[in-house]
Amino acid sequence: MSFHISPSPRVRRSPFFNSTVADGVVSFSPYNRMLMPTGYGDPLAEYWRLINTVSMWDVSVERQVELKGPDAARLAQILTPRKLDRMEAGVGWYVALCDHRGVLINDPILLKHSDDHFWLSIADGDVLLWARAIAAERGLDVEVTEPDVSPMAIQGPKAEDVVAALLGESIREIRHFRFRPMMLDNIPLVVARSGWSRQGGFELYLTDGRYGDELWEKVKEAGQPYGIGPGNPNPMERIESGLLSWGGDTDDQTNPFEVRMERYIQLDAPDDVVGIQALRKIHAEGPVRHQMGIVSDTVTAPDYSDVSGAVLLDGEEVGRVTAQSWSPRLEKSVGLCLIKRSVKADATVNIVYPDREPAEATVVDLPFV
Amino acid sequence: MSFHISPSPRVRRSPFFNSTVADGVVSFSPYNRMLMPTGYGDPLAEYWRLINTVSMWDVSVERQVELKGPDAARLAQILTPRKLDRMEAGVGWYVALCDHRGVLINDPILLKHSDDHFWLSIADGDVLLWARAIAAERGLDVEVTEPDVSPMAIQGPKAEDVVAALLGESIREIRHFRFRPMMLDNIPLVVARSGWSRQGGFELYLTDGRYGDELWEKVKEAGQPYGIGPGNPNPMERIESGLLSWGGDTDDQTNPFEVRMERYIQLDAPDDVVGIQALRKIHAEGPVRHQMGIVSDTVTAPDYSDVSGAVLLDGEEVGRVTAQSWSPRLEKSVGLCLIKRSVKADATVNIVYPDREPAEATVVDLPFV
Repeated sequence: MSFHISPSPRVRRSPFFNSTVADGVVSFSPYNRMLMPTGYGDPLAEYWRLINTVSMWDVSVERQVELKGPDAARLAQILTPRKLDRMEAGVGWYVALCDHRGVLINDPILLKHSDDHFWLSIADGDVLLWARAIAAERGLDVEVTEPDVSPMAIQGPKAEDVVAALLGESIREIRHFRFRPMMLDNIPLVVARSGWSRQGGFELYLTDGRYGDELWEKVKEAGQPYGIGPGNPNPMERIESGLLSWGGDTDDQTNPFEVRMERYIQLDAPDDVVGIQALRKIHAEGPVRHQMGIVSDTVTAPDYSDVSGAVLLDGEEVGRVTAQSWSPRLEKSVGLCLIKRSVKADATVNIVYPDREPAEATVVDLPFV
Repeated sequence: MSFHISPSPRVRRSPFFNSTVADGVVSFSPYNRMLMPTGYGDPLAEYWRLINTVSMWDVSVERQVELKGPDAARLAQILTPRKLDRMEAGVGWYVALCDHRGVLINDPILLKHSDDHFWLSIADGDVLLWARAIAAERGLDVEVTEPDVSPMAIQGPKAEDVVAALLGESIREIRHFRFRPMMLDNIPLVVARSGWSRQGGFELYLTDGRYGDELWEKVKEAGQPYGIGPGNPNPMERIESGLLSWGGDTDDQTNPFEVRMERYIQLDAPDDVVGIQALRKIHAEGPVRHQMGIVSDTVTAPDYSDVSGAVLLDGEEVGRVTAQSWSPRLEKSVGLCLIKRSVKADATVNIVYPDREPAEATVVDLPFV
C-alpha cells in the first residue's frame, strides 16, 4: 500500500533527501525520527548490485550519539559490557548496550576519536536519552549530544575502488572497522571501513549536513565506471548474512546471548557497567532462547519484503520468525527466528503468519551464506 | 510526494490500522515507532467536522509507559517537576518531563490508577528507556513497561453524545481529565475526558489490542447520528488553540518556561526530582526564548500542512517558526514560533522558509482562538 508521508517538524530530513528523490526512491521506513530510503523500484537489481558491484545508501538515520569530555571513556565503558580498556583511537567496535535487566537496548558501532571523544552510531532507538540519564545520574563530566553527522554507505565488492577514486588510493590501507577524518574537496568526512552488509565497503560520515547533495553527486560520479546505483540496507542480503536488526529481531526481553552477541560481552567487565550483574546471572543460568535461521520450501513465491510470524513445533508456539525474505542466491525463502533453545537445527517447524498462508520450514544455523 | 511505507517488524501496527485503511486513510506520520494516520483526503472537511460535530482518531501512537510497584508514586514524582502529593487516583494530569539540564523531554498525561500504578501517556519520544534508566539508577522497586494500551480519541462538540450513546449516560459525569475503567460489551477500556484538541471529547484507552477493529466499528456506528467521521490530531486546530507538539515545537534546548508550561512546574517540588535544580536556575535567570504566535497576511494561499522556517527581525535571526498552517476560522495563515523573549507581541518579522517564498508576519500572543 502506498500512502502519503505527512511533512512534520518532528520528522527530520536527511541531508541526502533531495538526491534520493531525484534518484527515484519509492519507499521509506521510519527510523530514529527520520525516514530511511528502502527501495528504488527494482528490489532484485538493487540486491544484485550490492552482491556484484557497488551500491550507495542514505543511512543518515544511523544517528551519532556523541560523548565528549573528561568522563567520555568512563561513560562509554559504563554503557557497554564489552571491555574497552584496550580500544585504540581511530577504531570502531560493534558493542551491545544493555539495560539493568541485561536486555539489549541497542547494538551500535562505538567509534573512538580520542580518550575524551566517542560516537555511538546507533540502530533505531533513543540512545541519546538513555546515555544522558546514566551520565547525569552517575554525576559524570561528559556532554552527550547528537551532532550534525550523517552516514552514507558505499557497499559491495567494488566499493573500495569507488572510494579510492573519490578520496585517493590511501583509503585502501584503512582496515576493517578503522576510520579517519578526511576532506573531499570542501566536504568534511569521517571515512570508515564498515557497513551493514557482508559485501564489504565504507561508510562516509558526513559532518556538515549542508553538503549532502554535493557528496551524493560526487559519489555517484566516481562510481559510474563501476556501475554504482542507489540502494539501501538490504533485507535479503542481511538475512542471508545473519546481520541483526535491533528492534526487529529483538523484543523487550532479548539479551545479547540470545542473538549471537556472546563475543561482544565480557563477564569480567567492570562492576559498574549497566546490566553486567544481570548478564552474569543470565549467562550462568543459560539463556532461554536463541536466534536461528529457517529455510522454507513451502514458500516458493519470491517475496522480498520482511515478514514475521509465529513458530510452532508440534502445535506449540516456540518463538517468532522476526524477518523472512526470498534469497536470490539460495533460491529459497529464508528467515531469522528467535525460538526456544531446546529447538535445534534440523527441526521441522510450522510458521503461522498474520496475513498469509502458513508454511513449513526447517531450522538451520546462521549465517546462510 | 507519495511514497510506499515499507513493512518492517521495527514499526508496530496500530490495532485500528485495518479500520483506518478501510475508512480511506491517505497519509501517516511516524510516531513512537508506529504510524499515526494524518489524513483521509479532505483536510477542510476533517477540520470542520472536529469544530462542528465529532471526529474519531486513531491515536494509538500515544503509547503508555506504565509504572507499577511499591515505588511507582516515588518514580512518577522523580520524573516530573509538578508536585504530585495531592494527586488522586482516577485523574490524569498534564506534566512536563525534564532532563537534568531542565530541558523538556516529553509532555505526557500522567494517569494515576492507584498509589502503585501510573501511566504516562506520551508524545513522540522514548520515555520508556528514560524512566527505566532513572528507576534502576535510583534503585527503585518499580516495573516500567509498555502495556498493550492503545488510545482512540473522540473529539468535538458532539463527542459526549457519541460516548454516551456508546457507554451510557453515566459518562457525562466524568469531569475534565478524569478517567474510569469500563467495559464496552467484551471490550476493556479506560475512558477519559481528554484529548489533543480544544473542542472537548474523550479518549478511549483500549487495553486489549485484539479488539481494535471491533471498537472502531462500534464508535463509528454510535456516531452515525451525529455525523462522526475519521480524523486525526488536527494541525490547524491545534495551532489555533496553541497546543504544544513536543519534538516539533521544541528542540534539544527547550525548557518548559519557554513553551508556556510554567503552571505545570513547581519550584518547591522535592530536591530529588530530575532537573529541578536546573529549572530553579533557569527560572531565576529568566528563560531566553518564548513560544508566541505569528499571523501572516503575506501568506494568502490556504495551506494545511505544517511548515517551519527561520524568523528574522531587522535581518537578524531571532528564532524559528515551528508550525504554520491556514486557519479556516481566522481566514489567515497562523503559526507557532520559538523566539527570543525580547521579541514581543506586535513585532513585525520576516519568515524565511526552506522551500517557499519568504513572508512577512506579526508576532501575537497565544492562543489564537
